[in-house]
Amino acid sequence: MNLLGAPIRGFAPFKQHKHGSQLHALKQSAAQPPRSSSLVAAPPATRSLLICAAAAVPAAAPVVEAPSAAIGNGIVAATQRSGLVQDAPTFQEAIAKLQEYWASVGCAIWLPHNTEVGAGTMNPATFLRVLGPEPWNVAYAEPSIRPDDSRYGDNPNRLQRHTQFQVILKPDPGNAQELYLGSLEALGIDTKVHDVRFVEDNWESPVLGAWGLGWEVWLDGMEVTQFTYFQQAGGRALDAPAVEITYGLERILMALQGVTNFKDIRYSPGVTYGEMFYQNEYEMSRYNLDEADVADQRIRFELYDKEARRLLAKRLPIPAYDHLLKLSHTFNIMDARGAVGVTERADCFATLRGLAREITGLWVLRREELEHPLGTITAPASPVPGRPAVPSSLEPRTFVLEIGTEELPPDDVVAAVNQLRERVPALLSKLRLTYGAVHVEGTPRRLAVVVEGLAARQASEEAKVRGPPAKQAFTADGSPTKALEGFCRKNGVDVASVTREVDGKGVEYVYAVVRDAGRAAAEVLTDELPALVGGLSFKKSMRWNGLGISFSRPMRWLLALHGDTVLPFVYGGLKAANVTRVLRNAAAPEVAVASAEGYLPALASAGISPSGTGRAEAIWRDVAAAAAKVGGTVPESTRGDLLEEVTNLVESPTVVMGSFSSDFLALPSEVLVMVMRKHQRYFPVFAPDGKSLMPYFITVANGPVDPAVVAAGNEAVLRARFEDASFFYREDLKQPLFAFRPKLSGTTFQKELGSLLDKAVRVEHLVAPLASAISERPGQALWADSREVACEAANLCKADLATSTVMEMTALAGTMGRHYAYKQGLSAAVAEAIFEAALPRFAGDLLPSSPPGVLVAVADRLDSLVGLFAAGCAPTAAADPYGLRRAAYGMLQTLVTNKVSLSLRSAIAATAQLQPISVSDSVKSDVLSYLNGRLEQLLSDGGAPVEVVRAVLAERADDPALAAATVEQLKVRGL
Amino acid sequence: MNLLGAPIRGFAPFKQHKHGSQLHALKQSAAQPPRSSSLVAAPPATRSLLICAAAAVPAAAPVVEAPSAAIGNGIVAATQRSGLVQDAPTFQEAIAKLQEYWASVGCAIWLPHNTEVGAGTMNPATFLRVLGPEPWNVAYAEPSIRPDDSRYGDNPNRLQRHTQFQVILKPDPGNAQELYLGSLEALGIDTKVHDVRFVEDNWESPVLGAWGLGWEVWLDGMEVTQFTYFQQAGGRALDAPAVEITYGLERILMALQGVTNFKDIRYSPGVTYGEMFYQNEYEMSRYNLDEADVADQRIRFELYDKEARRLLAKRLPIPAYDHLLKLSHTFNIMDARGAVGVTERADCFATLRGLAREITGLWVLRREELEHPLGTITAPASPVPGRPAVPSSLEPRTFVLEIGTEELPPDDVVAAVNQLRERVPALLSKLRLTYGAVHVEGTPRRLAVVVEGLAARQASEEAKVRGPPAKQAFTADGSPTKALEGFCRKNGVDVASVTREVDGKGVEYVYAVVRDAGRAAAEVLTDELPALVGGLSFKKSMRWNGLGISFSRPMRWLLALHGDTVLPFVYGGLKAANVTRVLRNAAAPEVAVASAEGYLPALASAGISPSGTGRAEAIWRDVAAAAAKVGGTVPESTRGDLLEEVTNLVESPTVVMGSFSSDFLALPSEVLVMVMRKHQRYFPVFAPDGKSLMPYFITVANGPVDPAVVAAGNEAVLRARFEDASFFYREDLKQPLFAFRPKLSGTTFQKELGSLLDKAVRVEHLVAPLASAISERPGQALWADSREVACEAANLCKADLATSTVMEMTALAGTMGRHYAYKQGLSAAVAEAIFEAALPRFAGDLLPSSPPGVLVAVADRLDSLVGLFAAGCAPTAAADPYGLRRAAYGMLQTLVTNKVSLSLRSAIAATAQLQPISVSDSVKSDVLSYLNGRLEQLLSDGGAPVEVVRAVLAERADDPALAAATVEQLKVRGL
Repeated sequence: MNLLGAPIRGFAPFKQHKHGSQLHALKQSAAQPPRSSSLVAAPPATRSLLICAAAAVPAAAPVVEAPSAAIGNGIVAATQRSGLVQDAPTFQEAIAKLQEYWASVGCAIWLPHNTEVGAGTMNPATFLRVLGPEPWNVAYAEPSIRPDDSRYGDNPNRLQRHTQFQVILKPDPGNAQELYLGSLEALGIDTKVHDVRFVEDNWESPVLGAWGLGWEVWLDGMEVTQFTYFQQAGGRALDAPAVEITYGLERILMALQGVTNFKDIRYSPGVTYGEMFYQNEYEMSRYNLDEADVADQRIRFELYDKEARRLLAKRLPIPAYDHLLKLSHTFNIMDARGAVGVTERADCFATLRGLAREITGLWVLRREELEHPLGTITAPASPVPGRPAVPSSLEPRTFVLEIGTEELPPDDVVAAVNQLRERVPALLSKLRLTYGAVHVEGTPRRLAVVVEGLAARQASEEAKVRGPPAKQAFTADGSPTKALEGFCRKNGVDVASVTREVDGKGVEYVYAVVRDAGRAAAEVLTDELPALVGGLSFKKSMRWNGLGISFSRPMRWLLALHGDTVLPFVYGGLKAANVTRVLRNAAAPEVAVASAEGYLPALASAGISPSGTGRAEAIWRDVAAAAAKVGGTVPESTRGDLLEEVTNLVESPTVVMGSFSSDFLALPSEVLVMVMRKHQRYFPVFAPDGKSLMPYFITVANGPVDPAVVAAGNEAVLRARFEDASFFYREDLKQPLFAFRPKLSGTTFQKELGSLLDKAVRVEHLVAPLASAISERPGQALWADSREVACEAANLCKADLATSTVMEMTALAGTMGRHYAYKQGLSAAVAEAIFEAALPRFAGDLLPSSPPGVLVAVADRLDSLVGLFAAGCAPTAAADPYGLRRAAYGMLQTLVTNKVSLSLRSAIAATAQLQPISVSDSVKSDVLSYLNGRLEQLLSDGGAPVEVVRAVLAERADDPALAAATVEQLKVRGL
Repeated sequence: MNLLGAPIRGFAPFKQHKHGSQLHALKQSAAQPPRSSSLVAAPPATRSLLICAAAAVPAAAPVVEAPSAAIGNGIVAATQRSGLVQDAPTFQEAIAKLQEYWASVGCAIWLPHNTEVGAGTMNPATFLRVLGPEPWNVAYAEPSIRPDDSRYGDNPNRLQRHTQFQVILKPDPGNAQELYLGSLEALGIDTKVHDVRFVEDNWESPVLGAWGLGWEVWLDGMEVTQFTYFQQAGGRALDAPAVEITYGLERILMALQGVTNFKDIRYSPGVTYGEMFYQNEYEMSRYNLDEADVADQRIRFELYDKEARRLLAKRLPIPAYDHLLKLSHTFNIMDARGAVGVTERADCFATLRGLAREITGLWVLRREELEHPLGTITAPASPVPGRPAVPSSLEPRTFVLEIGTEELPPDDVVAAVNQLRERVPALLSKLRLTYGAVHVEGTPRRLAVVVEGLAARQASEEAKVRGPPAKQAFTADGSPTKALEGFCRKNGVDVASVTREVDGKGVEYVYAVVRDAGRAAAEVLTDELPALVGGLSFKKSMRWNGLGISFSRPMRWLLALHGDTVLPFVYGGLKAANVTRVLRNAAAPEVAVASAEGYLPALASAGISPSGTGRAEAIWRDVAAAAAKVGGTVPESTRGDLLEEVTNLVESPTVVMGSFSSDFLALPSEVLVMVMRKHQRYFPVFAPDGKSLMPYFITVANGPVDPAVVAAGNEAVLRARFEDASFFYREDLKQPLFAFRPKLSGTTFQKELGSLLDKAVRVEHLVAPLASAISERPGQALWADSREVACEAANLCKADLATSTVMEMTALAGTMGRHYAYKQGLSAAVAEAIFEAALPRFAGDLLPSSPPGVLVAVADRLDSLVGLFAAGCAPTAAADPYGLRRAAYGMLQTLVTNKVSLSLRSAIAATAQLQPISVSDSVKSDVLSYLNGRLEQLLSDGGAPVEVVRAVLAERADDPALAAATVEQLKVRGL
């Protein structure tokens, strides 16, 4: 997805889906009708693009009677809303301004690549050049081709060819965020008025062995840029992490110019983007979605692959990489044509992954052989730690440590705060520093430790220290030996003060009572704080400078004060001082703090609320108030994780309410809520009944923005997203759910196992024997009654995978199936079973609970397990590309939770009979033993001792529900 | 070719060779050794590209201790010479300046295309958008890929990827040249100091059905831009001709920065082009020349072709065009790999031509259906002709007509002057205007007619006019009828004055003597001049505005004066006035001329010499003087056409002498002379012996340039060209001539006829029977003695086609073969026969004269004729892709001129036996009858009446020499 749909960046074919599953393998099939009628109804503008002959011609310019005219620019105004920027730049001016800006700070200006790429990242100026030790600062526009985003030019927000502006800064210049904000100003965006936020967004392409950490940059709720610290490519850690900044130009220009359709973007004076590119969008969409010859594309894929390999053997990484790009584009076209199944996808990815790894390796080697024509980066010199100026007063004072960072992910704020809450008191105790209340708080940009009443010095301490054995401490005549003298000197005690004691083994030693008077707190903390800061750990950490340290995000400043005393410790190339940073758009973004006691007041007066709880309470209060204003409510039950996440996305929360057209309420509420919560982090507003949505949303901006401006911006984004969803939903409703089922035949599930339709047929056929098997078990006779409903649901359970809405929002698989089943007039039992067939979708999700739902869900997973094991696709320790681990676990959960007794062995046998390939006994037994392993894990996760679980499984592994019941009984009996 | 080698523009695979022949089919084979050693010796610079963190960051910029440095820029200076421009722009600045400049005059800024193109012309923003009635003004950089120009980065002046900057102005703004000169100023080029010339260069791509007329723009002898009025594309005339301006950025930047190797171009501050792109050049060269898998490329070609056709059938011109580009690039790679023979080339071209035609047709149709989103161009209103203010004086005065144009091709200057010299006196006589001396002169920018003493009015005239028959003129009673009265009124005579006469048939008519007093010359000329101007015709004409007229190049002003009277006629949208234009870089480029008598003085005082003869004499005198200054000479025998051409390339000649390193004198003088004369239009300077070259050249600049600057610029160009030639020559000398022969196997001559090597073998085998056949004829017994030498020559006669020098300068085929034969130590007889085998190369060329030379030349042409006829490739009325017409004519000339008697029938039979395919009797007879046709033409061209020729041929066509002798005898005998 590109424009408003989702991440700007990414190697299109390798998009990492957060909940990857076979669902994602299904792509739209090719049945879109030609739309020549809509083409004819295209932009009707008729105006002229004429050369201004007058102004810029040289002195010799003749007086000509040739055509010469002012540039007309009329029609656009009609469809135009007020944009972000007065006198917003045209599309081409925006590119020119960005090029000029980045050139002015030292970037080379590169040109777009001459073969199709899915993103600026794939231009060799990024993908190859981020490797190795050479410095590299570059900026360029990149027309990026995503066949999958083809919409015939009909979707106002999505294009198969969009334009990225890409910047690479290597090494990290230390102020990349500020440089970036400067570029927004260069585009005319007043960052004092708008809500600019850095929202966690990491990038990973396992296929390319590439990843980085960073953010989406949100401008009034719209993702305008991807900002990433590139960490690894081709499976190799970058010698120097590179900053990658990727602007989505179309969406930025739509916002700046205040237009709601890409066609209305003013491209150059007097000419719109639609006039320039609409025909291209339409025709290339036709090609990508409907017309590209899939069989021929496969041949291309093989040709390019072969050529790339030959070139690697010849040690030519550049043309090999060009072929990797061609491979990738070809794959993308096949994918957009809906022709790539799970296995083919996995095979293609393996091809690409292998090539990427070899190419990057060879590239690095070749640059070495060329002796790094651009030179090599040297790590910055780290500052020298200072010594604190210890005050004479012994009064306890407040101690403050602030770790200033670029925007931390919300989870990392919480994690770091928790670590510090545990470690700071422990550290102070260990250091014999008495203290009062300890406050540890965090915002996206700072971790703050405030300790009240910290002692000026360490407490003194006496310790009895053992010296040498008495025999060696004294000569025969009782006078002290050299050894004793040395011991005393070292411990600062008098020889006369030592005592003697006999230890447990009967040996006599000398002892001294050693007194440690303690050092100044400022001194000892200056020594200890680096370890405290360096000891923080995160789920994912990154490097940014050449100093070998890592953190959640780059650290940019340190503040450490004890009372008035600066503790000038050094960590990560930074030296702690008494300066904090407040909001970036403040009049004075840096603020000196005279004393530790002044720290919190300084933040408060800058509008920053360091306390997470405080922010959460304030936000929730303001959210409720805002909802109440329109007679609505934001039910407590809908808070979920959203409040915590939002709380940690801002440090100066400003609640802003916006509205959307009530027309959109015709969409399924699951869709609207999904868009608002997941994509936009908005609180949806409900009517007082707590169930029906109202056409409002609430967002939380950061800092003193202009709320009207921010609301308008967010409304535009939401409208675009809703229009997108509406477009898909309307497309889907043109046909009943069952009509989507045949399209499953266009997607290979696995080469040997046939299409997804073949799989659906097998599941349908498996439901009946499964129902019989279950109903034959004691007490489960009634299950036979569910057979019919289950068969009906099984028939349709995968159909929604072919709908546009699910292809766009894969998390709605099952949900939309149920919705469309109701629309089609199916019974509630069937509709719910269609929904339940998709459960569980993730750890902790709902489980199927109706018998038909259980039957379909179990049958589907059995089919995957048996078929894929037989096809040689069993998971390994390293890889589980088909998600079989989750499938197995979910199936077992379903059986156990619903207490459904079933013989796995016989179920496997029944499943095996339906497979299109032969399933050997050894495969069946592999599946069984794999399920046993998962069952062991499931039961252990339930809290039973593993030896108990194992004992039970040795007997009863074939029936998970029975095994679970047995373990439960044993647990009750305390075993 | 791209950089300094040859035209910037052109669809690389479709380059139109002026002397197209099979020679051009042969391309370098793939045996270049890997050059990793040279790679290691690559640019040794090690410096840093660092972000200037300080200047442009927003207010919030923190104080960072991160890397931040001034940008280093040191090493380049070492290899740097003084460039054209002080503070020359970097490469990226040049692009930015051009974009800014062209945007400022109303162009949209486009992006490079995302599939490989050979030139900016092939970006759909040019090739498709020039079609149809929509206005289109656009500018963009375009990385252009020419696999054939791959040189591993070793050649300082040639790159397989170079950067064009492309501008399209549609419709013609009327001042495109001046706008262009403004862009040079924007780059910092002072057009007052440099020699900027527009030198005829037309572009044609028959394959694409595309052509245009225009110029190379020379900057101090270097081609920096192609400037074309695009007339036709895809076989269809453009609705509005478009101005296409294509800058070769690398060569311009080399000149501006004064560097002599592309690697040393400063790309961005502190980084050179070599540091950026050398590795790419090396590796892509390896791919293009050595590693691309030819068989797989052929499969790609077929896949792309098939897909393009499918897309056409689906009415999708844009993706179809994308596939045409892919086809083209694939073809270019196969070609660079030396894998494309004449037939395959012809087949590929037919594929591309057909697709181009269909795609452009469909594109035009689709734009119509879209109702021309960008509007349509309306033709400019033509001014209204005025009436001259006729003076009262009847004194004869000078008459001047000046047709002001953009630079006319030298031939067209001559042609137009000749036409006017004939027509002006005829017109004046017809108009009964007496006149004195008539001067018609021309320069590239003006055609000037100066008539001394032209009468103020037409001479009066009496004419006897026949009226109605007397019977109808008078009533029976002799009084005048209405008919007579009408006749008299019409002719302004009195009824009484009519007379009666009986005509030859005995009918009596009335007659009147009518007197025409004549009109003012100013009036009658104002009426008549449009037809005079419009009646001029040229070999190739072009349209430029929407007024339906055509001319050699666009007309930009008209001056017409009779004495002080302006003759305000209108032609081509221009209204004649009393203003002329002088040199473009003059302080006042427009000059008002008060009276016709002041016209020539006005030109003279602006330094313009309108007389061609005058300019030629001045140039030749100055050239001789310049040569004499260095003790050299420019022999009269070397004038050739060069003086005439040069004379008509300037209107204010300034002879400038330059020198080159005498090291280059080690190259064969034919190579040096070819480069100087043909490529650069320089006069080579010889030692007084008139034979050995001296290291000087003489060029002729236009206007008051700075000679030192111009000489330096030209020297740099020549050095680059010589280095290029030297590079190829050195490459060639690494192996003896015979070593090149096996490489001929890499090039298909024709699919069924095998490779060029196969052909060479056949020719070698044919020589012996041919020698026998000739020696058996009366008086030719000695020819048998030539057999051995001829065989040796035949063996090697095509080997030079595989040498680098000939591949670069195809006109040197044969010449280089001879040269390398001598170098290899072969006998003079063999070496000369190798040379003669290539003769005649063009109409009027030398013919073979030594028996071995005749034998090889005839055998080669016989082989082509018989083989290609048998393979179904005989020429048609419309097409002769294999040049068989010329081959046949040249062979017959050779036989006739050398009086070599030979039975064509038996020679054809002998040739047929050697062909790899069967040659039917009917094919043999077709060849014979084709040769008869050419012989008839040859003998008629010799001046014999065609009926005589036919009579002779009826009997003796089988032996051309005999037939010719017979015709000669008959001629002598007056028949």
